[in-house]
Amino acid sequence: MTDKPLVPDFGDDNTERKMCFIASKGTLDMAYPSLVMANAALMEGIETHIFFTFWGLDMVTKKHMSDLQFTWMGNTAMHPPGGRFHMPQAMAGLPGMTAMATRMMKKQISDLDVPEIPEFIEMIEAAGGQLWACKMSVDMMGYEKDDLADEVIDIITATEFIEVSQGAQIIFT
Amino acid sequence: MTDKPLVPDFGDDNTERKMCFIASKGTLDMAYPSLVMANAALMEGIETHIFFTFWGLDMVTKKHMSDLQFTWMGNTAMHPPGGRFHMPQAMAGLPGMTAMATRMMKKQISDLDVPEIPEFIEMIEAAGGQLWACKMSVDMMGYEKDDLADEVIDIITATEFIEVSQGAQIIFT
Amino acid sequence: MTDKPLVPDFGDDNTERKMCFIASKGTLDMAYPSLVMANAALMEGIETHIFFTFWGLDMVTKKHMSDLQFTWMGNTAMHPPGGRFHMPQAMAGLPGMTAMATRMMKKQISDLDVPEIPEFIEMIEAAGGQLWACKMSVDMMGYEKDDLADEVIDIITATEFIEVSQGAQIIFT
Repeated sequence: MTDKPLVPDFGDDNTERKMCFIASKGTLDMAYPSLVMANAALMEGIETHIFFTFWGLDMVTKKHMSDLQFTWMGNTAMHPPGGRFHMPQAMAGLPGMTAMATRMMKKQISDLDVPEIPEFIEMIEAAGGQLWACKMSVDMMGYEKDDLADEVIDIITATEFIEVSQGAQIIFT
Repeated sequence: MTDKPLVPDFGDDNTERKMCFIASKGTLDMAYPSLVMANAALMEGIETHIFFTFWGLDMVTKKHMSDLQFTWMGNTAMHPPGGRFHMPQAMAGLPGMTAMATRMMKKQISDLDVPEIPEFIEMIEAAGGQLWACKMSVDMMGYEKDDLADEVIDIITATEFIEVSQGAQIIFT
Repeated sequence: MTDKPLVPDFGDDNTERKMCFIASKGTLDMAYPSLVMANAALMEGIETHIFFTFWGLDMVTKKHMSDLQFTWMGNTAMHPPGGRFHMPQAMAGLPGMTAMATRMMKKQISDLDVPEIPEFIEMIEAAGGQLWACKMSVDMMGYEKDDLADEVIDIITATEFIEVSQGAQIIFT
């Protein structure tokens, strides 16, 4: 870790610091960055919000949140842990490959004692994280408030989110 | 909405607040987040910039901006509105699927009265949004200034963008 | 460039400004935005960090960093430079297409005198950029410190990254 003084200095306890995550992806891998960072921010005493928008809405939709999937399609970075080869894109599209990729990733995540999405959402809300759903996305998917996880405080517009994010470090994942 | 005081306080009218969006994707779905948020920020009186880079350059390229496409490939989150199943990746690659996915998404967006990309770019510029194209990306694609939408103020380097973004909330989409 | 005064004013020389990039993707195209912007920030005298996480860890993994690949899968924006057509997704998955797309992109990048990933990482470190690897991702991929490029200062947790990023403009790519 750097011992360079951090600038500007928000004080010792982060109580004046604020972070807003915008979760826009609905694949299993890309659901985690916002949750992991939001959780870490909350542990540091930082005011933390997550705004679920576009495909990220699946992370807080009752019927999809337990069932996010992972695919090697479009992700040339994928290779087995420790492996030296990249998964050929021509193979990644074969039937059954998405289910296999999802199973493998769920195991990797569970091996690290990182919770599954629904439990993680619950933990973040319990730690004081404020969860918001994007109105445009909710309308686009044809959802109602009842379709969303109970941890979601409210459905808000982009304009309301802009207000929520005033003074925050904003991270779009 | 939270009634917690927003910290730091930029004042009542957002006139000292600044947001810079970096639009890096050229798919129809991922073109919208920066446009929707930039538009909302402008409505709030916030100084707003969009820097179009990499595939996001298509959003302001005359010959492509009306014709962004959407694919289910790599996006396991996709399911029909209200639907309970995920689109199998093995089907998403069949001929004609991208055209169908694009058509469906254009209809969903239009049903919400959200404008198509070219009209949205025009609206944002009319509202005072400042649009910039990335020089490295323009050179990489072999474009000239004339290939870009008239709303683009100028082609600037990454260094110039870093200067533009001083003091801003930066959002990479 | 705008001649509007930049607000808030961090001073003439950017010495109090700080930027943190979170590099989360492992495809050849999406590896570049954080490197190009980090390099530009360093040239401006800004304190600059990059946190390599998830697939972005490949950018600083000895056995993968020279070998990032690019695919048209999921990226409907792709069309040959100056071309008017989009690469059909049904073609993008054929055997050999990823290798071809990667070769084409490497040539485009090299034609712009932009360095390949390993050389770029070296340049950024030499210019004072501080490079960090995400502990959860390192554990997930089964790597050790020795598997990572020498330019990586340390493997840190998300919590430590949250501390590093205090007061910074955070950009998730």
